[in-house]
Amino acid sequence: MKLIPVIMSGGVGSRLWPVSREAHPKPFMLLPDGQNLIQKTFRRAAALEGVAEVMTVTNRELFFKTEDEYRLAGGGAVAQSFILEPFGRNTAAAVAVAALQLQEVYGADAQMLILAADHLIKDESAFANAVVKARQLAAEGWLVTFGIRPEYPETGFGYIEADQDTPLAGGFKVNRFVEKPDLETAKQYLAAGNYLWNSGMFCFRVGTLVEQFEAYASDVLGAVRETLSRSRLSEGHRHRAITLDAEAFGEVPDISVDYALMERSQRVATVPCDIGWSDIGSWNAMSELTEADANGNRFDGEVLVHQASNNYVQSHGRLTALVGVENLIVVDTPDAVLVAHKDRAQDVKHIVSQLKRNGHDAHLLHRTVNRPWGTYTTLEEGERFKIKRIVVKPGASLSLQMHHHRSEHWIVVSGMARVVNDEREMLLDTNESTFIRAGHKHRLENPGVIDLVLIEVQSGDYLCEDDIVRFQDIYGRANG
Amino acid sequence: MKLIPVIMSGGVGSRLWPVSREAHPKPFMLLPDGQNLIQKTFRRAAALEGVAEVMTVTNRELFFKTEDEYRLAGGGAVAQSFILEPFGRNTAAAVAVAALQLQEVYGADAQMLILAADHLIKDESAFANAVVKARQLAAEGWLVTFGIRPEYPETGFGYIEADQDTPLAGGFKVNRFVEKPDLETAKQYLAAGNYLWNSGMFCFRVGTLVEQFEAYASDVLGAVRETLSRSRLSEGHRHRAITLDAEAFGEVPDISVDYALMERSQRVATVPCDIGWSDIGSWNAMSELTEADANGNRFDGEVLVHQASNNYVQSHGRLTALVGVENLIVVDTPDAVLVAHKDRAQDVKHIVSQLKRNGHDAHLLHRTVNRPWGTYTTLEEGERFKIKRIVVKPGASLSLQMHHHRSEHWIVVSGMARVVNDEREMLLDTNESTFIRAGHKHRLENPGVIDLVLIEVQSGDYLCEDDIVRFQDIYGRANG
Repeated sequence: MKLIPVIMSGGVGSRLWPVSREAHPKPFMLLPDGQNLIQKTFRRAAALEGVAEVMTVTNRELFFKTEDEYRLAGGGAVAQSFILEPFGRNTAAAVAVAALQLQEVYGADAQMLILAADHLIKDESAFANAVVKARQLAAEGWLVTFGIRPEYPETGFGYIEADQDTPLAGGFKVNRFVEKPDLETAKQYLAAGNYLWNSGMFCFRVGTLVEQFEAYASDVLGAVRETLSRSRLSEGHRHRAITLDAEAFGEVPDISVDYALMERSQRVATVPCDIGWSDIGSWNAMSELTEADANGNRFDGEVLVHQASNNYVQSHGRLTALVGVENLIVVDTPDAVLVAHKDRAQDVKHIVSQLKRNGHDAHLLHRTVNRPWGTYTTLEEGERFKIKRIVVKPGASLSLQMHHHRSEHWIVVSGMARVVNDEREMLLDTNESTFIRAGHKHRLENPGVIDLVLIEVQSGDYLCEDDIVRFQDIYGRANG
Repeated sequence: MKLIPVIMSGGVGSRLWPVSREAHPKPFMLLPDGQNLIQKTFRRAAALEGVAEVMTVTNRELFFKTEDEYRLAGGGAVAQSFILEPFGRNTAAAVAVAALQLQEVYGADAQMLILAADHLIKDESAFANAVVKARQLAAEGWLVTFGIRPEYPETGFGYIEADQDTPLAGGFKVNRFVEKPDLETAKQYLAAGNYLWNSGMFCFRVGTLVEQFEAYASDVLGAVRETLSRSRLSEGHRHRAITLDAEAFGEVPDISVDYALMERSQRVATVPCDIGWSDIGSWNAMSELTEADANGNRFDGEVLVHQASNNYVQSHGRLTALVGVENLIVVDTPDAVLVAHKDRAQDVKHIVSQLKRNGHDAHLLHRTVNRPWGTYTTLEEGERFKIKRIVVKPGASLSLQMHHHRSEHWIVVSGMARVVNDEREMLLDTNESTFIRAGHKHRLENPGVIDLVLIEVQSGDYLCEDDIVRFQDIYGRANG
């Protein structure tokens, strides 16, 4: 039987601001080991037995960025498909879209494995074993959850009560789902032994899932069918992408798969697991990935300390000094610094809400912005000038474009550029430069096999991103 | 009688790191009102009655920077002189050098007023009144201290015990100086009423001071005479600078004027003052210059808060977010962030010691470095490239120079540049650029009347400051 891991890459991770941002969310954050969660998740999924393809449900703005990560994770060996959402619409919608798609391509007997893009699983072989058990139960017609055996009385997760009187091969029938408990209740759950953390990972036979949706959440299924019928499919070699129609998708009920289906169905099972799972739900969870020193300090970056203990600092490129403080989280990024008490790590999300309310960019973007062709980083802005570092991927090309109000100086510091500047076309080698006058059509391209790095100095009276006229764009972007 | 304010600009202010650094010490720090202490001190000094000139004793590395500040403070109206130290040698040496110099130029009856460059005085007219009283006592042959009436039992200052049985016109004879007391003793001093904070400001008749040095610290005076005889004098219109001979100056005893003289002399008086004095001795003192909000937070910069109180943040250009923290000092600069508990503000100096021990630049320099001709700021460094913003003052010129290993691209973003590039000389207007090949002699000059701002992109295999050969330099700097 075919297995299709479905990576759900939806959330922003606003409790991990300022590193996690809307345009660079939690799955893309670098961990102390130099990898990110989405690469780890992809590799873990692709390594399972019997994988037909890896499907990803994500925001359409993250499509190119996600593809890049999979490429870096060695993704060429496995077929990939993408469901591209115009906006997040909760998990029932995402799971139902995936199910209908997979039923069409692989038939009702195929199995889907729902994974979160932003969870960490340390014991990958235990995970693979749990998947084997879950597939067996799914084949028998169960909707299978992965229940994490609790290590402490966590109050931030929902729990699954396993029905110990109904053992199944490799798991149990589920008695009920319970909401996040208070501490006292969580302690009782821990003592009882048959309560498990709800990890949000699932395994389904596609046909069973569609049937159960039909039975318990037919409104979701109907709206998703309508959305798919109006959506755009693009197909390539071992690659499929469906861009969901925004208007129809906006009509899908905004509900989680837990509420819509799992808590209602009578066919729910759980596979209890010890797989070293963490949802990296806050800076406290993140801090545990860095080893503590003798004073309980965990530092990812250059930190100097005078009588400070039990702090976590993440700072790349800038020095941090701590004097006489304890139990703090300090996270430093090029445009924002967070200082939070460890006991209040959950409240970081309130800062993100404030930024959104104020219309502040810092919830949305980093100084480095991803584009289909590479990245740009604004190094400095001042009156009448702006300086960017532009990295163009091998073979990639920016659109043929023109600016009315700004001139641009380009200096190649690494790699080779092919430049169209007005009527001329030229190759610029490392250490060479050119000047694009305002009003001149131009295009930048990397014809080489290594990254092209160039410094762009813009000068002019108006330097905003919206002063651009695009004439041709290989990524299908319209002007504006 | 002539009055010569002598501004002592010696200390680094390591408790105000990371804003205060060796090459940009406390007197140059911007206060929330947009001014700095050295400008305030200069203006306050120059505004006094009967000022013949303003003398400044400072490190020779800070000469141009200090002159720039005085120019901005409208310094053209008053004659200036500078004593340039090769290194700090405590206050007895600095005061004695000033005294001997002033005796030579103005004679024994001239009066000198010793001021610290890094103290804040809020009530300038009360200060001017106190100076009038002090001059009267100085004329009678007293060594006059300014005693600040204590507002609370401070344990960080030395105290002066006024002899209330010996009132003088405008002050008292001093009974004794006392070291920093413990809290209990400080409370007794406050209650007693005749104990005053030792502000480190003094007023002397030059001849009296030299006599007293002769009597109590003739070793200091002798070594300073020797230093002056070997030092270099440069004179211009209403301008005099003496560069002290390093070898001779190193032989002067390392002792404060308080120990060497004031605590020994029988001719010491004090003028009690209420002048709104603060030595801005720590980030706590600095924070009080910014108004508190309803939660006791004082913010100089863009700050977002979720349930945080009694914190101080200084951050220019970057967003700071505080979550659930209290009584913290957060100071953010382009290359370093400080997070300290308010009760431990004094301990910030230990971070500076650590930086020095580790040979880390962050105790010494900011990203923006002052030069006689203007400033440069390193915006970004990477493999094979470095980007600087260079500001050249009107009329100023960099040396004619050459680099072996790097090419430089210059782009003018504001103002006008005169450039020598190998055999050619040209004018570059705003938005124009040029390219200096490695091995080519070049010179950059600002022929205009506004600042020249340019972006320099260096590329090459070796980009350190020591790859420079200087051919001609109007500031007399040798190569290296």
